[in-house]
Amino acid sequence: MKEFKIGLLGLGNIGVGTYKTLEMNKDAIEAELGASVNIVKILEKDTERERDIKVTKDQFVSDIEDITGDPDIDIVIELLGGIEPASTFMEKALLAGKHVVTANKAALAASWQRLHEAEKKGGAILRYEASVGGGIPVLTALAGSLRANRFEEVMGIVNGTTNYILYNMTAKGLDYDTVLKDAQARGFAEADPTADVEGIDAANKLSILMALMFDKYVPPTEIPTEGIKSITAEDIEAADKEGCVIKLIARAARTDDGVEYAVKPMRIEKSHPLAGVDGEFNAVFVRGNAVGELMFYGPGAGPLPTGSAVMGDVMEICKWISK
Amino acid sequence: MKEFKIGLLGLGNIGVGTYKTLEMNKDAIEAELGASVNIVKILEKDTERERDIKVTKDQFVSDIEDITGDPDIDIVIELLGGIEPASTFMEKALLAGKHVVTANKAALAASWQRLHEAEKKGGAILRYEASVGGGIPVLTALAGSLRANRFEEVMGIVNGTTNYILYNMTAKGLDYDTVLKDAQARGFAEADPTADVEGIDAANKLSILMALMFDKYVPPTEIPTEGIKSITAEDIEAADKEGCVIKLIARAARTDDGVEYAVKPMRIEKSHPLAGVDGEFNAVFVRGNAVGELMFYGPGAGPLPTGSAVMGDVMEICKWISK
Repeated sequence: MKEFKIGLLGLGNIGVGTYKTLEMNKDAIEAELGASVNIVKILEKDTERERDIKVTKDQFVSDIEDITGDPDIDIVIELLGGIEPASTFMEKALLAGKHVVTANKAALAASWQRLHEAEKKGGAILRYEASVGGGIPVLTALAGSLRANRFEEVMGIVNGTTNYILYNMTAKGLDYDTVLKDAQARGFAEADPTADVEGIDAANKLSILMALMFDKYVPPTEIPTEGIKSITAEDIEAADKEGCVIKLIARAARTDDGVEYAVKPMRIEKSHPLAGVDGEFNAVFVRGNAVGELMFYGPGAGPLPTGSAVMGDVMEICKWISK
Repeated sequence: MKEFKIGLLGLGNIGVGTYKTLEMNKDAIEAELGASVNIVKILEKDTERERDIKVTKDQFVSDIEDITGDPDIDIVIELLGGIEPASTFMEKALLAGKHVVTANKAALAASWQRLHEAEKKGGAILRYEASVGGGIPVLTALAGSLRANRFEEVMGIVNGTTNYILYNMTAKGLDYDTVLKDAQARGFAEADPTADVEGIDAANKLSILMALMFDKYVPPTEIPTEGIKSITAEDIEAADKEGCVIKLIARAARTDDGVEYAVKPMRIEKSHPLAGVDGEFNAVFVRGNAVGELMFYGPGAGPLPTGSAVMGDVMEICKWISK
C-alpha cells in the first residue's frame, strides 16, 4: 500500500489537534485514500510536554533540513504560527517540491506572493483552508465550487475572540474590560489579546480572502483596520435601539473602480444572517453574481476544528498527487 | 487553446440559468482554466421559446446519441429533471466516458448505485453539487475539505418551498392553505406542490447526503417521510410558546447500531442556527467528530444559483482532467 509521509512543523495545541484528528479517524481517512498516511517527523523543541497522543521521541527533529531535505516526505504541515521562521520554512519546503498545508494566517498573508512563487517553482501544492474560519470549509469553496461566480462582496466574522467579547457585552450589558477579563479566564482570549482586539488577525484573514476572491493581494498592514477596544456598552445599546448588533467585520467589495476593504466594527441589522453569529463562532458571508448570498458558519478556531481543515487539505493533496 | 466541449440536456429555467452563468462569467472562467468552455450541443425539444441568451438553432439536437456519441464532447450537463429518461441518459454518457454534471436530485437519489457503477465503468467523473442546497457548496465540502471527519449528524432545511410556507405561517399567523396559495402566486411553490409539501424532494436530498456522509445509500422511497400539510397555525403558536420554530428537517444521525433518518417537521429551538433560516433559503447543519458544528446557508434553488453550482462542477472536472 502506498504511504504518504508527513513532516509536521510545531506540536503546540493546534499541532496536537491535527495529530489527534488523524489518529481518531485514521482508518476512514486511509480507506478513502487507499493509502496510509503518517506523520513521521515533527519539528518541535518541547519534546517533554505531556500530550494526549501517541507520539514517540524518535519522531522529533530539531532542524528544518531534517524535513525539507528528506526525500521520503511528501507533505509538510506548518503549524508554528507567526510570520517567521514559518514563511521561510514553508518556502524551503515548497522549493524542495514538498506540498505544504498551513493554518498560519499571519505567515500566509504577509508572505502571500513569496509562497505562491515558491509553490510554482517547486511544482508543489500550497493549501491553507484552516487559515480563515478555522474548521469552516470556506476557502476551498471560494477557489473551487464557487469559482464560476464573479464575487461582489465578502463580510466575515473571522475572529472568535472579538465576537465572543462583543456578544457578551451585548447579551449581558457589560463593558469591554470586564468581558475581556472573563474571556481571558475562560480561554477565549489570550493573555496578550492585541492581535485579536485590534483587528490584526482579522486583517490577515481579509488579505487572504481578497487574494482568492478578487485576485487582489493587499498586505494586511495596508488594510484599514480598527479594533473593538473603543466600543462601549452605550454604543451597543444605541445600535440595539435601531435594530442592529455590532460585530467586528472584515469586509471587501467590488466598486466601480476596484475593491474597497476594511476591518472595523459595523452595525449589522438583526435580520442579516451574520447578526445571529454568537459567541466564539465565525461566519463568512459571500455574494457572487450567480449564486447570490451565501453564508458559511462554524468554529473559527480550536485544535480539532483546525485539525479537520488541515487534514482535509492533506487528503485533497493526496488525491491530487496520486491521480 | 484547449477547448472543453459541453453537451447540455434540457434548456428549461435551470438550463437557461446555467447557460447564463457561463455567458456572464466566461472570460474569468476561461482565464482560470486556461481553456475555452463552450456548450456546443443542447438536447431540447422546444427550440422556439424566447430565451434571454445567445443560443442558435444549430446547437439544438433531438437525439441523446447526438451528444453521447459525439467524440468531441467532454462533459454532459443533465438538467432535464425527473428520474427518467435522465438516469438512462446520464448512464449512457458515463459509459461513453463523458463526465457528467447534474442538478437532478430525483434521478440521482433513485439511481445512485447505477450511476456510480457507470461512472466507474466509463472511467468518468459524476458530480452533483447542485442537487442538494442549490447554490450552496455543501456536497463538495462534505466529500472533500471535511473528509477527515467522522460525520455524526446532518440536519437540512433543503426544500425552499416548504421553508417559505412555514416561515410565512409563523411570521403572519396564517394557515397552510392561505400561505400555499400566496406562495404559488409568487412562484415559490409549483402548481402541483406535492413533491415539495409531502417531503419527497427533501427525502431525495437526504438520500444523497447520507450516501456521501455515512457511506449508506437508502433509496428515498425507504426514508420515513412526513410533509407539512398537517401543520396548523396552532402548532406553530404552541412551538413558539416553548421557544421553538417548526421547520421541515431532513435529518440523519449515527446511532449505536447504524444510522437513523427521517424527513419530518421538527421543533427547532430559536437559538439553533437553523431556526433563523427564513423564507426560501436552505441550510445544511453538519456535525463532525473533529470539526464540531457547521452550517452552510444560501439559496437552495433558482436558475443562477443552480448554474453557479453546475458550472463550479464543470470547472472542477476541467481542472482534474487537464492535470
